Amino acid sequence: MKIAAPLALALVFGSLSAPASAQFQRPDDAVKYRKAALTVMSNHFGRIGAMANGRAPFDAKAAAESAAIVETMSKLPWEGFVAGTDKGDTRALPKIWTEQAKFNEAAERLQADTAKLNAAAKTGNLDAIKTAFGATGQSCKACHDAYRKD
Amino acid sequence: MKIAAPLALALVFGSLSAPASAQFQRPDDAVKYRKAALTVMSNHFGRIGAMANGRAPFDAKAAAESAAIVETMSKLPWEGFVAGTDKGDTRALPKIWTEQAKFNEAAERLQADTAKLNAAAKTGNLDAIKTAFGATGQSCKACHDAYRKD
Repeated sequence: MKIAAPLALALVFGSLSAPASAQFQRPDDAVKYRKAALTVMSNHFGRIGAMANGRAPFDAKAAAESAAIVETMSKLPWEGFVAGTDKGDTRALPKIWTEQAKFNEAAERLQADTAKLNAAAKTGNLDAIKTAFGATGQSCKACHDAYRKD
Repeated sequence: MKIAAPLALALVFGSLSAPASAQFQRPDDAVKYRKAALTVMSNHFGRIGAMANGRAPFDAKAAAESAAIVETMSKLPWEGFVAGTDKGDTRALPKIWTEQAKFNEAAERLQADTAKLNAAAKTGNLDAIKTAFGATGQSCKACHDAYRKD
């Protein structure tokens, strides 16, 4: 039986019956998206960390800009953890989907922390930034320890 | 001659003499960062496109959220186009660095377009969103045609 190319693709990727989610055509797109959001978040979190740890001079404006990006990014990756996307180019552990409530809690904790970090950065007070940076870093680490392959 | 590991790494990646930029430890980090920002932007631009083209039902709140992310993301990738990063896992053409003024103009045009798209999305008017989406898509395409490998 010959199948037209778009239909064949749709069958292969299952997009006829049920797409990976409303926002992602294919499971790989969901993986790529969540990794991209985490990459942007991590880069800007690192910039704040360099200032918090004295490896870079404190620049209040740059810190505030990065903290705003970190908060925005912290809301995004979770949607990309579509069921079944522990395969492919990802370090996500299957546990994410077997204890979803706990995973969601970790995601929410991070978002609460990044909101505080953003608020701290807006004050321009380096000590407040250091405290919020530390708490946020703990949330990153806890989630990576629990849900990411080494 | 034996060189301590951190020093050896610093020599390999050139971070002793001059880092890729203040924000990126290595050229690859800059490539990864700009691609990540473009991936997040492209995903949310696509969500608006699906509504603009009638492939998805119009959801004014979702469109506005995505447009805000698109505008934020449109400011980020450019910093990642560090000199010499037309190598590695990238489709960036060397022309980016030989006609930097033109490339910067294209980047600024995109940012102006995404600001308009965000403003349009905030009004919740689908026709205004369609117009701004079309203009922004033209900017994406013009830059990709000129500066990205096929």
